[in-house]
Amino acid sequence: MGASLAPSTRRLAPANKHLPRGFRFAAAACGLRRTGGPDLSLIVSDAPASAAAVFTQNLVEAAPVTLSRVHVRRAASRMRAIVVNAGNANCCTGAAGLRAARDTTRQVARLIGCRPEEVVVCSTGVIGVPMRVGKILRALPRCAGSLASASAAFASVTRAMMTTDTRPKWAAAQCRVGDRQVRLLGCAKGAGMIHPNMATMLAFVLTDAAIAPAQLRRALHEVTARTFNCVTVDGDTSTNDTLAVLANGANGARVGAGLQTRPPAVRRGTGRGKPAPADYTRFAAALENVCASLARQIAADGEGAKRLVEIAVRGAANARDAKRVAETIATSPLVKTALAGADPNWGRILAAAGRSGVQFDPARAVIWLAGVKVYSRGRPLPFSERAVSRRMRVPAVRIVADLGLHKSRATSPGSPDTEHGARYWTCDFTGDYVRINASYRT
Amino acid sequence: MGASLAPSTRRLAPANKHLPRGFRFAAAACGLRRTGGPDLSLIVSDAPASAAAVFTQNLVEAAPVTLSRVHVRRAASRMRAIVVNAGNANCCTGAAGLRAARDTTRQVARLIGCRPEEVVVCSTGVIGVPMRVGKILRALPRCAGSLASASAAFASVTRAMMTTDTRPKWAAAQCRVGDRQVRLLGCAKGAGMIHPNMATMLAFVLTDAAIAPAQLRRALHEVTARTFNCVTVDGDTSTNDTLAVLANGANGARVGAGLQTRPPAVRRGTGRGKPAPADYTRFAAALENVCASLARQIAADGEGAKRLVEIAVRGAANARDAKRVAETIATSPLVKTALAGADPNWGRILAAAGRSGVQFDPARAVIWLAGVKVYSRGRPLPFSERAVSRRMRVPAVRIVADLGLHKSRATSPGSPDTEHGARYWTCDFTGDYVRINASYRT
Repeated sequence: MGASLAPSTRRLAPANKHLPRGFRFAAAACGLRRTGGPDLSLIVSDAPASAAAVFTQNLVEAAPVTLSRVHVRRAASRMRAIVVNAGNANCCTGAAGLRAARDTTRQVARLIGCRPEEVVVCSTGVIGVPMRVGKILRALPRCAGSLASASAAFASVTRAMMTTDTRPKWAAAQCRVGDRQVRLLGCAKGAGMIHPNMATMLAFVLTDAAIAPAQLRRALHEVTARTFNCVTVDGDTSTNDTLAVLANGANGARVGAGLQTRPPAVRRGTGRGKPAPADYTRFAAALENVCASLARQIAADGEGAKRLVEIAVRGAANARDAKRVAETIATSPLVKTALAGADPNWGRILAAAGRSGVQFDPARAVIWLAGVKVYSRGRPLPFSERAVSRRMRVPAVRIVADLGLHKSRATSPGSPDTEHGARYWTCDFTGDYVRINASYRT
Repeated sequence: MGASLAPSTRRLAPANKHLPRGFRFAAAACGLRRTGGPDLSLIVSDAPASAAAVFTQNLVEAAPVTLSRVHVRRAASRMRAIVVNAGNANCCTGAAGLRAARDTTRQVARLIGCRPEEVVVCSTGVIGVPMRVGKILRALPRCAGSLASASAAFASVTRAMMTTDTRPKWAAAQCRVGDRQVRLLGCAKGAGMIHPNMATMLAFVLTDAAIAPAQLRRALHEVTARTFNCVTVDGDTSTNDTLAVLANGANGARVGAGLQTRPPAVRRGTGRGKPAPADYTRFAAALENVCASLARQIAADGEGAKRLVEIAVRGAANARDAKRVAETIATSPLVKTALAGADPNWGRILAAAGRSGVQFDPARAVIWLAGVKVYSRGRPLPFSERAVSRRMRVPAVRIVADLGLHKSRATSPGSPDTEHGARYWTCDFTGDYVRINASYRT
């Protein structure tokens, strides 16, 4: 949590005191995963929860995404469960695939006593293989029977979701709402496609705060733009990406009473409306902490990755331009291979910025690499390549590019510059990425 | 050079009869290349030539690009020479770099008897290293002294331009203009950045046809859009990219008398103007053949590449959409690593198309891989993965995606569909690419 860039050595599961109230968790092995092991997860809220979700923008979308979109729209104020399988993405599976997703939500609804539309369904795994939904339907009663509100049960969910991930990913936060502390707890599986046709980034955040669905949606969209939409491993958007938040109000504290619910983009030009109440601001910040941590964990665990890389761009004409430059640097194969080799290659960083389509003057730009200023005003600075390379041989490296269009008031190169800046997370590009993705079936 | 996709086993140099008249060639070793060997090339037209050129669109551009832009604008009807060095890109070298480029054109002008602005100057090599232009200035007299109108001299130019290329690249064509055959001869160096900060795609086409600069410019822009702007190795645009065409009229045949000179895009909505004369059409087709062959050779010789890949998209709403889909597939790391492993991974191809931002219905799309229909109407087709994988283990593989928005009249999947289609060339993405780009300095 917090602002530290390096993913710390983490415990495998949160403490029980981090669990938001009123949620139960379970995992089981249903037999879809080739290697065996748990591959079916269930998250249940005891009370109806407010829900908000964002899904893949890929035109090719999996059946569970199609169904869950409808469910979240229809039951945004009374969501009860999330069911997830690994081993099969249920994508390009036609009408049978949609039936499989629907049957899964029906079975969950029957077991926990709710309506099918009150269940979010997610799949991750191979594309284009028919879904053997019988395996899921048969395993669900056992899974529902073992639901527990305990840290170990949550940990089993984080592991059963994993496919290409090398480690489970979770993050927790708390914040004050009214006179109470509410809890947020998130988990994610990685942005890798290690098996051919493998697809998916999945992330779920659970909280015991009470918040109206429209306000939760607003918070989620604001936060996603700065977190999950600022992370890349290989630039390939999957067919199953899902990020869902459930807020069940079990804590009793209510966020954002009287808050404008339309996001700022819609209100552009008509004034900013009422300022957000402090409760909402604190809740959104806690949600951002959880999502940013999960996004960083995903980049750090990218396929074959040796290191997490943060790209901070500042001094741009606006935040949108800054994000575009940061994204171009973050997806450049030449930048990412240089990072794999710990090569302080400022030329590739500058050239990537230069082709991003954003206007700036390279003769006014400045680049820092691993804390060392390496390029300024059109010329490389004298620096020890060996020393900078040594500074890059760490689990997390920061690249800062100042485009020189706005004087930053920040004193250190790593400081945020939200008005004219943006941050993006990526990983290095290693031979292992190629080996993993080239050598599966052949 | 014909429509064959596979780069044939080629002779190292064209026959003397392929050389356009009135051009002379020479190469020399000036000492900029670390490994020694020829690194300085000179191409001279005996008579003033019409010139057209396109340059990198990267904001970070090398000094020779800045200078050559001005020269081509000022002396488009009387260009005399192209001078090229390898070993140093002369980029991010400040005012001294611009002086070095200027001194180089002055020395060439003095030696061959023309004005400095009648010389195009190009550099390729490392970025950010001061240019030791004295080495070039001292070697140029020797180089100019050995100018010859012979195939071997042209071949020495193609080799002296090479940096990360594993083989020289050239292409020749002829076409009838009036009652004469005019000749076109092109050479290129590759789109690789094998050394850190290494940058550049350079290509030159020489012809003994006579054509007005404005018409040559029109032909070059039309052709570039379908050839050099449809090739990618790693998606990283270099700082030195230059494509220049010289037409010296030594053959006496004049192309395109009376042709509208503004490109079609400018005339949109005002009717198409006079149809282009047959001479112009034939000349532009010959130019396209040369440029397409060079572009394919560049993709086939991409860093670490084992195979050339052609992406043909058809059945799109328009050619622009088709190009966008083709480019997204061509730059997808997941598609390119699958190609390295000869993995018939239609799911990655479809998912890349789906995230391209172009609207289409995946349930109406069809995909062919190495000549085998693998996906149709929302579902994979039954095919032998082993057999298709075997068909992919060749030097050149074709992927065809039909988006299903327009019924193609073409009967074979590989046929062009210029109104609703586009073609793009790329290469596979191998462990060698990462090794080459990650391991230089460290």
